[in-house]
Amino acid sequence: MPAFANRMKSMEKSAAIIRKLFGAMNNKDIISFGGGAIARESLPIDLIREITQDILQKDTRGVEALSYGPVMGIADLREVVVEELLAPKGVVANPENVMIINGGLEAMNLMCQVFIDPGDVILVESPTFVHSAEIFDMFQAKCIPVDMDADGMVMDDLEAKIIAHKPKMIYAIPTFQNPTGRTYSRERRYQLAQLGSRYDVVILEDDPYRDIRYSGEELPPIKHFDQTGHTVMANSFSKIFSPGSRLGYVLASDDIIEKLADAKTATNSHTAMLPQIICAEFFKRGHYHAHHERLCDIHRERRDAMIQAVDTHFPKGTKRTYPDGGLFTWVELPGGINTTELLIEACSNPEVGVSYVAGEGFFKEGKGKGSNCMRLSFGAVTPEQIAFGIERLGKLIHSKLEHQSLMKTG
Amino acid sequence: MPAFANRMKSMEKSAAIIRKLFGAMNNKDIISFGGGAIARESLPIDLIREITQDILQKDTRGVEALSYGPVMGIADLREVVVEELLAPKGVVANPENVMIINGGLEAMNLMCQVFIDPGDVILVESPTFVHSAEIFDMFQAKCIPVDMDADGMVMDDLEAKIIAHKPKMIYAIPTFQNPTGRTYSRERRYQLAQLGSRYDVVILEDDPYRDIRYSGEELPPIKHFDQTGHTVMANSFSKIFSPGSRLGYVLASDDIIEKLADAKTATNSHTAMLPQIICAEFFKRGHYHAHHERLCDIHRERRDAMIQAVDTHFPKGTKRTYPDGGLFTWVELPGGINTTELLIEACSNPEVGVSYVAGEGFFKEGKGKGSNCMRLSFGAVTPEQIAFGIERLGKLIHSKLEHQSLMKTG
Repeated sequence: MPAFANRMKSMEKSAAIIRKLFGAMNNKDIISFGGGAIARESLPIDLIREITQDILQKDTRGVEALSYGPVMGIADLREVVVEELLAPKGVVANPENVMIINGGLEAMNLMCQVFIDPGDVILVESPTFVHSAEIFDMFQAKCIPVDMDADGMVMDDLEAKIIAHKPKMIYAIPTFQNPTGRTYSRERRYQLAQLGSRYDVVILEDDPYRDIRYSGEELPPIKHFDQTGHTVMANSFSKIFSPGSRLGYVLASDDIIEKLADAKTATNSHTAMLPQIICAEFFKRGHYHAHHERLCDIHRERRDAMIQAVDTHFPKGTKRTYPDGGLFTWVELPGGINTTELLIEACSNPEVGVSYVAGEGFFKEGKGKGSNCMRLSFGAVTPEQIAFGIERLGKLIHSKLEHQSLMKTG
Repeated sequence: MPAFANRMKSMEKSAAIIRKLFGAMNNKDIISFGGGAIARESLPIDLIREITQDILQKDTRGVEALSYGPVMGIADLREVVVEELLAPKGVVANPENVMIINGGLEAMNLMCQVFIDPGDVILVESPTFVHSAEIFDMFQAKCIPVDMDADGMVMDDLEAKIIAHKPKMIYAIPTFQNPTGRTYSRERRYQLAQLGSRYDVVILEDDPYRDIRYSGEELPPIKHFDQTGHTVMANSFSKIFSPGSRLGYVLASDDIIEKLADAKTATNSHTAMLPQIICAEFFKRGHYHAHHERLCDIHRERRDAMIQAVDTHFPKGTKRTYPDGGLFTWVELPGGINTTELLIEACSNPEVGVSYVAGEGFFKEGKGKGSNCMRLSFGAVTPEQIAFGIERLGKLIHSKLEHQSLMKTG
């Protein structure tokens, strides 16, 4: 067979991580803290059925729903994005600058199509989202990690790396970050936008968790502070509507959005019409507000259950983040426990039967960084499953620590 | 702003053609023979509404339809592809080798991700499908056209170009080709599969029109003759079900399908779930057979109307193809008429009010090749619109010829 393209080689490692991750998620016998899905209880099935029944008629939107559509996405969904999702967050935008895409992740692929030649540098958070990193690898970008603290990327480290590496792009998840659940402070958001403008670097702001905030103070997106068009915002309907609909959007300045539309045309022409129309109608009929409240209530309860369970059952010396929204908490274990090895036992031992995502895969540094960390997702598990699963996982961790201490003493 | 990637430069010309093409399609005041859509009258809206109502329930497939799904696509739709669309055509396949994608075109993007480094050669038909050519340009492939006759690619020319250019891939639309409507003979299909195996070149068989055959003899796909896994088949549900659903599939050998799945993961994770489930149910409930018959009846009538109108209204010396299926006839005009210039007048003159796709854009040779040709699509226009529009277009062509002959005499 002819040789695969070079990009397939450069993505091999991250592709293997992703495959393993998805494999573990599909095992029905275990409690999964692995995936990034929202609560199935929060999916608005009945409303969607009602809307679908109305629109799938010849004299309503049935023909439109089943026909070819515009590459940019349907006009009313782009207006919904501008009026209901961007304006309330302090982002003034024109629907002409918004493109509907096949899930938020597609923005990362399209942005690479538009900007990344092999060898170009992308600065990423440390740790960063594995799925986006896989895309950057496929485009043969050189990913360089930037230090993070509780307020986001550390600006001194970022600026030094901009000067040293002349990146094309900086990739940031500023709100309830994946995997850490951390949120950038207002000041860091402002500074990041400024650095993009000053050094002529594109800021790719990936903000899919922003709209499920259930405690703490609302903060404006980085894009709010962008005066020069250097910030491009990617977002998703997967967390606020439904992941299976594969709907997302990207907001960019005129010259960039035109190129993104060309890349989208050359990827899959346009996003499926029926999900777009259902989603637009969902907002236009005024269902979002009550749905959003319910969504936040469900996930707040799960966050609380997760934090309480970790604090109760994990050993002394454990560090964890406290997210004000989103789906993840990030845990650092004491005592040099390797979470990749632990995961094998947690999944395969029927007395544990729990999965999570091991920390190592989120670090572009390699060399075992993050090997004592794990991402715990609480979106797709009930409070009861959280209490039960985290207790079992805690017991396993305790037994490892005891074993270690016995080995040392012995 | 940072520089765009080199690939955006190499796709500029084809992107401009595509943008112009889509722009003309959206003008509601003209009769469009431009797009590649099926008859809106053939969209199974009522059946889809009924199915959707059934599946969007908590206790049926509602949760599945709105949740994340597998990168390969849902199992039952892949089984439908194998049992109802491949087996009857003489292609024995395993569902594990079929991936559901976001429209047939996505296969071309993913195949380039997997195989094409900048500068790699792809042999294409002359003329070839502009939309795929745009993708090949985005991946900085070098597209080299191969001569075509009424039976498909000319094998001597193809073999000579394989030897001379060592291509990674050969791109062919063997059935009711876009733009010519031509169909490869059985012999050529066999030979193409053999050449792929012998010279270790991937054959990318793009076959979206195959299933709307309404006259002539059924022929096996190239993939039927493939003994070595060198042929990869791309297909679409856009012509046999609904274009707005953005559903397609790709069939490839084990090693290639694994890489395609990695590329799909790094493009948009997976295809939207609701359209997949609706489509699978459509087949599983046995609706396809009657729908297919109706689809063929509608398009046969339109093909007949188009051929009759062209034969009646276009000048002596016009050549046109006679497709046994699909959506296109290809016309060569006599007298050196430039169809790109003609199109401007056909669209803008309210006494004509007709659009089509000018021939030049389909030829990778450039240098004005195909400048007397046009692709006429008869899928999305009624027999009445065809008769009316082609008569007007014919008159315009006649007037141009008369003007030319006056200029010569004068």
